[in-house]
Amino acid sequence: MRLRLRLAYDGTDFSGWAEQPGRRTVAGVLRPALETLARGPVRLVVAGRTDAGVHAAAQVAHADVPQAEAVTLRSLDGLLPQDVRVHAVDLAPPGFDARFSATSRRYAYRVADGLTDPLRRRDTLRWPRPLDEAAMAEASDLLLGLRDFAAFCRRSERRTTIRRLLRLTWTRTDVLTATVEADAFCHSMVRSLVGALLAVGDGRRPVDWPASMLGSSTRADDVSVAAAHGLTLLEIRYPADDRLAARAEQTRARRDAGG
Amino acid sequence: MRLRLRLAYDGTDFSGWAEQPGRRTVAGVLRPALETLARGPVRLVVAGRTDAGVHAAAQVAHADVPQAEAVTLRSLDGLLPQDVRVHAVDLAPPGFDARFSATSRRYAYRVADGLTDPLRRRDTLRWPRPLDEAAMAEASDLLLGLRDFAAFCRRSERRTTIRRLLRLTWTRTDVLTATVEADAFCHSMVRSLVGALLAVGDGRRPVDWPASMLGSSTRADDVSVAAAHGLTLLEIRYPADDRLAARAEQTRARRDAGG
Repeated sequence: MRLRLRLAYDGTDFSGWAEQPGRRTVAGVLRPALETLARGPVRLVVAGRTDAGVHAAAQVAHADVPQAEAVTLRSLDGLLPQDVRVHAVDLAPPGFDARFSATSRRYAYRVADGLTDPLRRRDTLRWPRPLDEAAMAEASDLLLGLRDFAAFCRRSERRTTIRRLLRLTWTRTDVLTATVEADAFCHSMVRSLVGALLAVGDGRRPVDWPASMLGSSTRADDVSVAAAHGLTLLEIRYPADDRLAARAEQTRARRDAGG
Repeated sequence: MRLRLRLAYDGTDFSGWAEQPGRRTVAGVLRPALETLARGPVRLVVAGRTDAGVHAAAQVAHADVPQAEAVTLRSLDGLLPQDVRVHAVDLAPPGFDARFSATSRRYAYRVADGLTDPLRRRDTLRWPRPLDEAAMAEASDLLLGLRDFAAFCRRSERRTTIRRLLRLTWTRTDVLTATVEADAFCHSMVRSLVGALLAVGDGRRPVDWPASMLGSSTRADDVSVAAAHGLTLLEIRYPADDRLAARAEQTRARRDAGG
């Protein structure tokens, strides 16, 4: 039986999503809770594996469980710590795969270049100099589309680094927030893009600098990865239920071809 | 020399504003930082003394200092912990008294009666049942105006408990937020009002119950004080500079008359 879960977490005190021996991780607290309720081994697959310190407002996962009846919002609520909250749990529609059925992921990155709100210091990067958001927006536009993002991916990446960047916009309220959406992201890609764009906003790099690295086959040494705590996973999109299985198959095939 | 300060803090790890021996308080970290920079004893007076766990987005204080030149935003930034941020510091206009010149205080109280955001758990009360915000709004309207709020004040209060409640509204976004404004508040008044209104929102008490306690001369036993961490001080208002001294005099006179 496959369950679909939607959950939120404060990444501050987690060593990321993926289970690691001796570390507190989101999967490492969620899977045992599910196993207690489902009375047996659970396999857990997440849509967006987040790094240490990265937050999620609407992460999606699926869990293959021996029994589903006792896995309810209320029972999970009682078993999970305050920094992980499950917002929805239901039977997954046929063909649903949290990771491979997804069509896009959307993240927000928060930067405060002026006054800082102490209550938001856990999900906001503090920046010591004023940022030029017009320059950052211009540089961001040049990155959109189907591109090879190898310059912004972890060097170890062996699979394809071609991704479709659907959206990269900046809005200023009390802080500057990037909204970044792509079909998928390679490891550290959002934070590397933000790191490059902060160098533009700072005036240290020209507007066309981030885009000039597109197509390079290796990671760019001079792109710094923006700190994890500014990043929050906002949304995972899926196709209509009748397209879930086909989409999963298509994603798997492309990944196999690519790497 | 009198400085005027505007500051924000995350109240989570503070035992409130006021200095107390052996406790970490906001004044207890701010005053020594000011004394280091001003090279001598500092007297610090705050507009809204907040209780343990209560936050501030825009607290105002004045500091009487022997030397003002070295007390800058940048130098304070380096001396203060991450959970207190000074947003502005300047020479106070003549007659300015952070406490007595103020004409009103505005607070927000956040309650989540549905999905909770783990990143906002430090400034949001979690409520286990759905709240009827229409009933709460109706009950709130009945509390407005110049009233004796003794039922909502700490029993120990010896001064007048008459206050002018200027605003008490509820808005629902992802959470339910009360905005509460008055000329001044007695101790625990906002949290007692919210506690009474939550009982209405819950259906445990009728809409006219909170207002029925107005005019009582003592604290109501059956009003529970809502938890501190949902409360944030949002704004302190002052009159135009040429009215600061007169307003301070008037406030002092009224307080002396009242208790």
